[in-house]
Amino acid sequence: MKSFRRELWFEVPSRRAFVNITPQVEEALRQSEVQEGLVLVNAMHITASVFINDNESGLHADYEAWLEGLAPHEPTSRYRHNLTGEDNADAHLKRQIMGREVVVAVTNGRLDFGPWEQIFYGEFDGRRRKRVLVKIIGE
Amino acid sequence: MKSFRRELWFEVPSRRAFVNITPQVEEALRQSEVQEGLVLVNAMHITASVFINDNESGLHADYEAWLEGLAPHEPTSRYRHNLTGEDNADAHLKRQIMGREVVVAVTNGRLDFGPWEQIFYGEFDGRRRKRVLVKIIGE
Amino acid sequence: MKSFRRELWFEVPSRRAFVNITPQVEEALRQSEVQEGLVLVNAMHITASVFINDNESGLHADYEAWLEGLAPHEPTSRYRHNLTGEDNADAHLKRQIMGREVVVAVTNGRLDFGPWEQIFYGEFDGRRRKRVLVKIIGE
Repeated sequence: MKSFRRELWFEVPSRRAFVNITPQVEEALRQSEVQEGLVLVNAMHITASVFINDNESGLHADYEAWLEGLAPHEPTSRYRHNLTGEDNADAHLKRQIMGREVVVAVTNGRLDFGPWEQIFYGEFDGRRRKRVLVKIIGE
Repeated sequence: MKSFRRELWFEVPSRRAFVNITPQVEEALRQSEVQEGLVLVNAMHITASVFINDNESGLHADYEAWLEGLAPHEPTSRYRHNLTGEDNADAHLKRQIMGREVVVAVTNGRLDFGPWEQIFYGEFDGRRRKRVLVKIIGE
Repeated sequence: MKSFRRELWFEVPSRRAFVNITPQVEEALRQSEVQEGLVLVNAMHITASVFINDNESGLHADYEAWLEGLAPHEPTSRYRHNLTGEDNADAHLKRQIMGREVVVAVTNGRLDFGPWEQIFYGEFDGRRRKRVLVKIIGE
Protein backbone atom coordinates (compact mmCIF):
# COMPACT_ATOMS: atom_id res chain seq x y z
CA MET A 1 0.00 0.00 0.00
CA LYS A 2 1.24 3.45 -0.93
CA SER A 3 0.47 6.56 1.05
CA PHE A 4 1.00 10.20 0.15
CA ARG A 5 0.51 13.41 2.12
CA ARG A 6 0.29 17.00 0.95
CA GLU A 7 -0.70 20.22 2.69
CA LEU A 8 -2.36 23.02 0.73
CA TRP A 9 -1.99 26.48 2.28
CA PHE A 10 -4.39 29.41 1.97
CA GLU A 11 -4.59 32.98 3.10
CA VAL A 12 -7.97 34.20 1.93
CA PRO A 13 -8.05 38.05 2.06
CA SER A 14 -11.77 38.20 3.01
CA ARG A 15 -13.70 36.65 5.88
CA ARG A 16 -15.48 34.20 3.61
CA ALA A 17 -14.71 32.68 0.20
CA PHE A 18 -14.91 29.52 -1.88
CA VAL A 19 -11.72 28.39 -3.63
CA ASN A 20 -11.61 25.66 -6.29
CA ILE A 21 -8.80 23.30 -5.23
CA THR A 22 -9.43 20.53 -7.76
CA PRO A 23 -6.22 21.24 -9.72
CA GLN A 24 -4.06 21.01 -6.58
CA VAL A 25 -5.68 17.73 -5.54
CA GLU A 26 -5.19 16.34 -9.06
CA GLU A 27 -1.53 17.36 -8.97
CA ALA A 28 -1.03 15.62 -5.61
CA LEU A 29 -2.66 12.50 -7.03
CA ARG A 30 -0.28 12.52 -10.00
CA GLN A 31 2.71 12.82 -7.71
CA SER A 32 1.45 10.01 -5.47
CA GLU A 33 1.44 7.59 -8.43
CA VAL A 34 -1.56 5.87 -6.83
CA GLN A 35 -3.73 4.16 -9.46
CA GLU A 36 -6.46 2.62 -7.27
CA GLY A 37 -7.45 3.88 -3.85
CA LEU A 38 -8.99 6.74 -1.91
CA VAL A 39 -8.17 10.42 -1.48
CA LEU A 40 -9.15 12.20 1.73
CA VAL A 41 -9.26 16.00 1.50
CA ASN A 42 -10.05 17.79 4.75
CA ALA A 43 -9.86 21.22 6.28
CA MET A 44 -7.30 21.20 9.11
CA HIS A 45 -9.11 24.14 10.73
CA ILE A 46 -12.51 24.04 12.38
CA THR A 47 -13.90 27.21 10.79
CA ALA A 48 -13.40 26.02 7.21
CA SER A 49 -14.84 23.32 4.96
CA VAL A 50 -13.89 21.09 2.07
CA PHE A 51 -16.86 20.14 -0.10
CA ILE A 52 -17.76 19.05 -3.60
CA ASN A 53 -20.23 20.97 -5.70
CA ASP A 54 -20.57 23.11 -8.82
CA ASN A 55 -18.01 25.66 -10.05
CA GLU A 56 -20.63 28.35 -10.69
CA SER A 57 -20.34 31.81 -9.19
CA GLY A 58 -24.09 32.36 -8.83
CA LEU A 59 -24.37 29.18 -6.78
CA HIS A 60 -21.51 30.33 -4.58
CA ALA A 61 -23.36 33.59 -3.95
CA ASP A 62 -26.43 31.52 -3.06
CA TYR A 63 -24.39 29.46 -0.58
CA GLU A 64 -23.03 32.64 1.00
CA ALA A 65 -26.51 34.15 1.46
CA TRP A 66 -28.06 30.86 2.60
CA LEU A 67 -25.38 30.15 5.20
CA GLU A 68 -25.63 33.70 6.50
CA GLY A 69 -29.37 33.14 6.96
CA LEU A 70 -28.87 29.83 8.78
CA ALA A 71 -25.98 31.02 10.99
CA PRO A 72 -25.64 34.83 10.93
CA HIS A 73 -22.30 36.40 11.76
CA GLU A 74 -23.97 39.29 13.60
CA PRO A 75 -24.79 40.19 16.22
CA THR A 76 -21.66 38.39 17.41
CA SER A 77 -23.06 38.61 20.95
CA ARG A 78 -25.70 36.00 20.09
CA TYR A 79 -23.08 33.24 20.44
CA ARG A 80 -21.57 32.08 23.72
CA HIS A 81 -18.39 30.99 21.92
CA ASN A 82 -17.69 34.65 21.19
CA LEU A 83 -17.41 35.35 24.95
CA THR A 84 -13.94 33.78 24.60
CA GLY A 85 -12.89 36.87 22.65
CA GLU A 86 -13.45 35.30 19.23
CA ASP A 87 -15.99 36.60 16.72
CA ASN A 88 -16.14 33.42 14.65
CA ALA A 89 -18.82 31.25 16.26
CA ASP A 90 -20.89 31.51 13.07
CA ALA A 91 -17.95 30.05 11.12
CA HIS A 92 -17.97 26.91 13.30
CA LEU A 93 -21.68 26.49 12.53
CA LYS A 94 -21.39 27.17 8.80
CA ARG A 95 -18.61 24.61 8.57
CA GLN A 96 -20.95 21.89 9.94
CA ILE A 97 -23.45 22.56 7.15
CA MET A 98 -20.80 22.44 4.42
CA GLY A 99 -18.73 19.64 5.98
CA ARG A 100 -15.11 19.10 7.01
CA GLU A 101 -13.95 16.64 4.38
CA VAL A 102 -14.55 14.71 1.21
CA VAL A 103 -13.39 11.23 0.27
CA VAL A 104 -12.92 10.65 -3.46
CA ALA A 105 -12.30 7.37 -5.26
CA VAL A 106 -9.14 6.98 -7.34
CA THR A 107 -9.61 4.86 -10.47
CA ASN A 108 -6.93 4.42 -13.13
CA GLY A 109 -4.87 7.15 -11.49
CA ARG A 110 -7.62 9.79 -11.67
CA LEU A 111 -10.23 11.34 -9.40
CA ASP A 112 -13.32 9.24 -10.15
CA PHE A 113 -15.76 12.12 -10.62
CA GLY A 114 -19.15 12.71 -12.15
CA PRO A 115 -19.46 15.38 -14.84
CA TRP A 116 -19.68 18.49 -12.62
CA GLU A 117 -17.90 17.52 -9.44
CA GLN A 118 -15.25 19.99 -8.28
CA ILE A 119 -13.56 20.25 -4.88
CA PHE A 120 -13.80 23.52 -2.96
CA TYR A 121 -12.17 24.99 0.08
CA GLY A 122 -14.82 26.94 1.98
CA GLU A 123 -13.37 29.67 4.17
CA PHE A 124 -15.61 31.14 6.87
CA ASP A 125 -13.02 32.96 8.99
CA GLY A 126 -10.26 34.06 6.68
CA ARG A 127 -7.55 36.70 6.66
CA ARG A 128 -5.07 34.25 8.21
CA ARG A 129 -2.96 31.32 7.01
CA LYS A 130 -4.86 28.04 7.05
CA ARG A 131 -4.37 24.54 5.68
CA VAL A 132 -6.05 21.67 3.88
CA LEU A 133 -4.73 18.11 4.12
CA VAL A 134 -4.65 15.77 1.13
CA LYS A 135 -4.01 12.14 2.11
CA ILE A 136 -3.94 9.44 -0.55
CA ILE A 137 -3.80 5.70 0.08
CA GLY A 138 -3.86 2.87 -2.44
CA GLU A 139 -1.68 1.10 -4.98
CA MET B 1 -4.90 -4.49 -1.77
CA LYS B 2 -8.05 -5.19 -3.76
CA SER B 3 -10.18 -2.48 -5.31
CA PHE B 4 -13.64 -2.72 -6.81
CA ARG B 5 -15.80 -0.18 -8.62
CA ARG B 6 -19.51 -0.21 -9.39
CA GLU B 7 -21.88 2.44 -10.72
CA LEU B 8 -25.53 2.43 -9.69
CA TRP B 9 -27.90 4.20 -12.10
CA PHE B 10 -31.16 5.93 -11.27
CA GLU B 11 -33.92 7.72 -13.08
CA VAL B 12 -36.25 8.96 -10.39
CA PRO B 13 -39.64 9.94 -11.95
CA SER B 14 -40.23 12.82 -9.49
CA ARG B 15 -38.16 15.86 -8.59
CA ARG B 16 -37.31 14.51 -5.16
CA ALA B 17 -37.17 11.04 -3.62
CA PHE B 18 -35.25 8.81 -1.23
CA VAL B 19 -34.20 5.38 -2.52
CA ASN B 20 -32.83 2.60 -0.30
CA ILE B 21 -29.67 1.35 -2.03
CA THR B 22 -28.38 -0.92 0.75
CA PRO B 23 -29.07 -4.14 -1.21
CA GLN B 24 -27.08 -2.88 -4.24
CA VAL B 25 -24.14 -1.87 -2.06
CA GLU B 26 -24.21 -5.25 -0.31
CA GLU B 27 -24.23 -7.01 -3.68
CA ALA B 28 -21.24 -4.97 -4.86
CA LEU B 29 -19.41 -5.88 -1.65
CA ARG B 30 -20.07 -9.59 -2.20
CA GLN B 31 -18.73 -9.38 -5.74
CA SER B 32 -15.64 -7.49 -4.59
CA GLU B 33 -14.68 -10.36 -2.26
CA VAL B 34 -13.20 -7.78 0.11
CA GLN B 35 -13.26 -9.03 3.73
CA GLU B 36 -11.64 -6.09 5.54
CA GLY B 37 -11.60 -2.52 4.26
CA LEU B 38 -13.71 0.50 3.45
CA VAL B 39 -16.62 1.18 1.10
CA LEU B 40 -17.12 4.69 -0.28
CA VAL B 41 -20.61 5.38 -1.66
CA ASN B 42 -21.06 8.82 -3.24
CA ALA B 43 -23.44 10.69 -5.49
CA MET B 44 -21.69 11.50 -8.78
CA HIS B 45 -24.06 14.44 -9.28
CA ILE B 46 -24.10 17.65 -7.28
CA THR B 47 -27.86 17.85 -6.76
CA ALA B 48 -28.13 14.45 -5.05
CA SER B 49 -26.97 12.88 -1.80
CA VAL B 50 -25.95 9.57 -0.35
CA PHE B 51 -26.66 9.29 3.37
CA ILE B 52 -27.32 6.77 6.11
CA ASN B 53 -30.45 6.90 8.21
CA ASP B 54 -33.68 5.05 8.98
CA ASN B 55 -35.84 3.18 6.46
CA GLU B 56 -39.08 4.72 7.74
CA SER B 57 -41.48 6.52 5.40
CA GLY B 58 -42.69 9.02 8.00
CA LEU B 59 -39.11 10.13 8.61
CA HIS B 60 -38.58 10.54 4.86
CA ALA B 61 -41.65 12.78 4.71
CA ASP B 62 -40.16 14.76 7.61
CA TYR B 63 -36.87 15.16 5.73
CA GLU B 64 -38.73 16.34 2.64
CA ALA B 65 -40.68 18.99 4.57
CA TRP B 66 -37.67 20.07 6.64
CA LEU B 67 -35.37 20.48 3.65
CA GLU B 68 -38.05 22.43 1.80
CA GLY B 69 -38.23 24.76 4.79
CA LEU B 70 -34.44 25.22 4.95
CA ALA B 71 -33.94 25.62 1.19
CA PRO B 72 -37.26 26.21 -0.63
CA HIS B 73 -37.55 25.32 -4.29
CA GLU B 74 -39.74 28.36 -4.98
CA PRO B 75 -39.68 31.11 -5.88
CA THR B 76 -36.87 29.92 -8.15
CA SER B 77 -35.96 33.57 -8.72
CA ARG B 78 -34.61 33.81 -5.17
CA TYR B 79 -31.41 32.03 -6.27
CA ARG B 80 -28.70 33.54 -8.46
CA HIS B 81 -27.74 30.09 -9.73
CA ASN B 82 -31.11 29.89 -11.46
CA LEU B 83 -30.15 32.88 -13.64
CA THR B 84 -28.10 30.31 -15.61
CA GLY B 85 -31.40 28.84 -16.84
CA GLU B 86 -31.51 26.08 -14.21
CA ASP B 87 -34.25 25.80 -11.61
CA ASN B 88 -32.32 23.52 -9.26
CA ALA B 89 -30.36 25.86 -6.96
CA ASP B 90 -32.35 24.54 -4.01
CA ALA B 91 -31.19 21.01 -4.87
CA HIS B 92 -27.53 22.08 -4.54
CA LEU B 93 -28.33 23.46 -1.07
CA LYS B 94 -30.37 20.47 0.10
CA ARG B 95 -27.55 18.17 -0.96
CA GLN B 96 -25.13 19.98 1.40
CA ILE B 97 -27.43 19.30 4.38
CA MET B 98 -27.80 15.62 3.54
CA GLY B 99 -24.21 15.08 2.34
CA ARG B 100 -22.47 13.76 -0.77
CA GLU B 101 -21.08 10.48 0.50
CA VAL B 102 -20.80 7.86 3.19
CA VAL B 103 -17.82 5.70 4.12
CA VAL B 104 -18.71 2.34 5.65
CA ALA B 105 -16.39 -0.16 7.33
CA VAL B 106 -16.16 -3.68 5.90
CA THR B 107 -15.65 -6.39 8.56
CA ASN B 108 -15.72 -10.12 7.80
CA GLY B 109 -17.00 -9.38 4.31
CA ARG B 110 -20.04 -7.40 5.49
CA LEU B 111 -21.11 -3.76 5.90
CA ASP B 112 -20.27 -3.10 9.55
CA PHE B 113 -23.56 -1.47 10.52
CA GLY B 114 -25.48 -0.66 13.65
CA PRO B 115 -29.01 -2.08 14.01
CA TRP B 116 -30.92 0.50 11.92
CA GLU B 117 -28.35 1.85 9.47
CA GLN B 118 -29.47 1.83 5.83
CA ILE B 119 -27.92 3.65 2.86
CA PHE B 120 -30.11 6.01 0.84
CA TYR B 121 -29.80 7.85 -2.42
CA GLY B 122 -31.37 11.28 -1.98
CA GLU B 123 -32.58 12.80 -5.24
CA PHE B 124 -33.31 16.54 -5.26
CA ASP B 125 -33.47 17.16 -9.02
CA GLY B 126 -34.72 14.00 -10.63
CA ARG B 127 -36.45 13.02 -13.87
CA ARG B 128 -33.08 12.35 -15.51
CA ARG B 129 -30.50 9.56 -15.45
CA LYS B 130 -28.00 9.96 -12.61
CA ARG B 131 -25.35 7.83 -10.94
CA VAL B 132 -23.92 6.72 -7.61
CA LEU B 133 -20.36 5.39 -7.31
CA VAL B 134 -19.48 2.46 -5.06
CA LYS B 135 -15.74 2.07 -4.52
CA ILE B 136 -14.38 -0.66 -2.27
CA ILE B 137 -10.79 -1.05 -1.14
CA GLY B 138 -9.31 -3.64 1.20
CA GLU B 139 -8.28 -7.27 1.32
CA MET C 1 -2.79 -4.11 4.75
CA LYS C 2 -3.70 -4.06 8.43
CA SER C 3 -7.21 -3.52 9.71
CA PHE C 4 -8.40 -2.83 13.24
CA ARG C 5 -11.89 -2.51 14.73
CA ARG C 6 -13.02 -1.05 18.02
CA GLU C 7 -16.45 -0.19 19.41
CA LEU C 8 -16.87 2.68 21.87
CA TRP C 9 -19.95 2.46 24.09
CA PHE C 10 -21.90 5.34 25.59
CA GLU C 11 -24.86 5.83 27.85
CA VAL C 12 -25.41 9.57 27.99
CA PRO C 13 -27.69 10.42 30.97
CA SER C 14 -29.38 13.35 29.16
CA ARG C 15 -31.24 13.54 25.87
CA ARG C 16 -28.47 15.54 24.20
CA ALA C 17 -24.72 15.93 24.83
CA PHE C 18 -21.35 16.27 23.14
CA VAL C 19 -18.59 13.92 24.31
CA ASN C 20 -14.91 14.32 23.37
CA ILE C 21 -13.78 10.89 22.15
CA THR C 22 -10.36 11.89 20.82
CA PRO C 23 -8.46 10.00 23.57
CA GLN C 24 -10.32 6.75 22.84
CA VAL C 25 -9.66 7.05 19.11
CA GLU C 26 -5.97 7.76 19.76
CA GLU C 27 -5.79 4.70 22.02
CA ALA C 28 -7.38 2.52 19.32
CA LEU C 29 -4.86 3.86 16.82
CA ARG C 30 -1.94 2.98 19.11
CA GLN C 31 -3.25 -0.55 19.54
CA SER C 32 -3.74 -0.96 15.80
CA GLU C 33 -0.03 -0.27 15.17
CA VAL C 34 -1.03 1.36 11.88
CA GLN C 35 1.53 4.00 10.82
CA GLU C 36 0.02 5.19 7.51
CA GLY C 37 -3.64 4.91 6.59
CA LEU C 38 -7.14 6.11 7.38
CA VAL C 39 -9.35 6.01 10.45
CA LEU C 40 -13.13 5.94 10.03
CA VAL C 41 -15.11 6.95 13.13
CA ASN C 42 -18.89 6.70 12.79
CA ALA C 43 -22.00 6.64 14.91
CA MET C 44 -23.63 3.20 14.67
CA HIS C 45 -26.99 4.77 15.55
CA ILE C 46 -29.03 7.09 13.36
CA THR C 47 -29.88 9.65 16.03
CA ALA C 48 -26.25 10.43 16.88
CA SER C 49 -23.28 12.05 15.15
CA VAL C 50 -19.51 11.91 15.05
CA PHE C 51 -17.94 15.23 14.07
CA ILE C 52 -14.74 17.23 14.41
CA ASN C 53 -14.75 20.70 15.88
CA ASP C 54 -13.55 22.74 18.86
CA ASN C 55 -13.40 21.54 22.47
CA GLU C 56 -15.00 24.71 23.85
CA SER C 57 -18.09 24.58 26.06
CA GLY C 58 -19.53 27.88 24.82
CA LEU C 59 -19.45 26.58 21.25
CA HIS C 60 -21.18 23.39 22.33
CA ALA C 61 -23.94 25.48 23.92
CA ASP C 62 -24.19 27.38 20.61
CA TYR C 63 -24.53 24.12 18.68
CA GLU C 64 -27.26 22.95 21.07
CA ALA C 65 -29.28 26.16 20.66
CA TRP C 66 -28.69 26.35 16.90
CA LEU C 67 -29.74 22.75 16.25
CA GLU C 68 -32.82 23.21 18.40
CA GLY C 69 -33.73 26.21 16.24
CA LEU C 70 -33.20 24.30 12.98
CA ALA C 71 -34.97 21.10 14.11
CA PRO C 72 -36.99 21.65 17.31
CA HIS C 73 -37.75 18.69 19.55
CA GLU C 74 -41.23 20.03 20.35
CA PRO C 75 -44.01 19.87 19.57
CA THR C 76 -43.22 16.23 18.86
CA SER C 77 -46.47 16.05 16.88
CA ARG C 78 -44.94 18.18 14.12
CA TYR C 79 -43.06 15.11 12.81
CA ARG C 80 -44.65 12.18 11.02
CA HIS C 81 -41.87 9.87 12.24
CA ASN C 82 -43.20 10.34 15.77
CA LEU C 83 -46.50 8.72 14.75
CA THR C 84 -44.54 5.44 15.05
CA GLY C 85 -44.51 5.99 18.83
CA GLU C 86 -41.02 7.54 18.89
CA ASP C 87 -40.36 11.10 20.02
CA ASN C 88 -36.94 11.40 18.36
CA ALA C 89 -37.62 12.63 14.81
CA ASP C 90 -35.72 15.84 15.61
CA ALA C 91 -32.68 13.73 16.52
CA HIS C 92 -32.65 12.16 13.03
CA LEU C 93 -32.66 15.68 11.54
CA LYS C 94 -30.00 17.11 13.87
CA ARG C 95 -27.74 14.18 13.06
CA GLN C 96 -27.85 15.09 9.33
CA ILE C 97 -26.58 18.62 10.11
CA MET C 98 -23.74 17.36 12.30
CA GLY C 99 -22.92 14.27 10.21
CA ARG C 100 -22.59 10.52 10.77
CA GLU C 101 -18.86 10.05 10.45
CA VAL C 102 -15.38 11.46 10.10
CA VAL C 103 -12.41 10.07 8.20
CA VAL C 104 -9.03 11.07 9.60
CA ALA C 105 -5.61 10.56 8.04
CA VAL C 106 -3.00 8.53 9.94
CA THR C 107 0.57 9.77 9.46
CA ASN C 108 3.55 8.39 11.40
CA GLY C 109 1.18 6.49 13.65
CA ARG C 110 -0.79 9.58 14.74
CA LEU C 111 -4.08 11.29 13.91
CA ASP C 112 -3.00 13.88 11.32
CA PHE C 113 -4.82 16.86 12.83
CA GLY C 114 -4.72 20.61 12.61
CA PRO C 115 -4.14 22.57 15.84
CA TRP C 116 -7.69 22.54 17.23
CA GLU C 117 -9.28 19.42 15.75
CA GLN C 118 -10.99 17.15 18.27
CA ILE C 119 -13.44 14.30 17.63
CA PHE C 120 -16.86 14.44 19.30
CA TYR C 121 -19.73 12.06 19.76
CA GLY C 122 -22.95 14.03 19.39
CA GLU C 123 -25.87 12.44 21.18
CA PHE C 124 -29.36 13.64 20.24
CA ASP C 125 -31.48 10.86 21.79
CA GLY C 126 -29.60 9.59 24.82
CA ARG C 127 -30.44 7.77 28.02
CA ARG C 128 -29.73 4.42 26.37
CA ARG C 129 -26.64 2.41 25.44
CA LYS C 130 -25.27 3.37 22.01
CA ARG C 131 -22.10 2.74 20.05
CA VAL C 132 -19.45 4.36 17.86
CA LEU C 133 -17.34 2.31 15.45
CA VAL C 134 -13.62 2.97 14.97
CA LYS C 135 -12.21 1.22 11.90
CA ILE C 136 -8.56 1.66 10.95
CA ILE C 137 -6.93 0.47 7.75
CA GLY C 138 -3.36 0.93 6.59
CA GLU C 139 0.14 -0.35 7.19
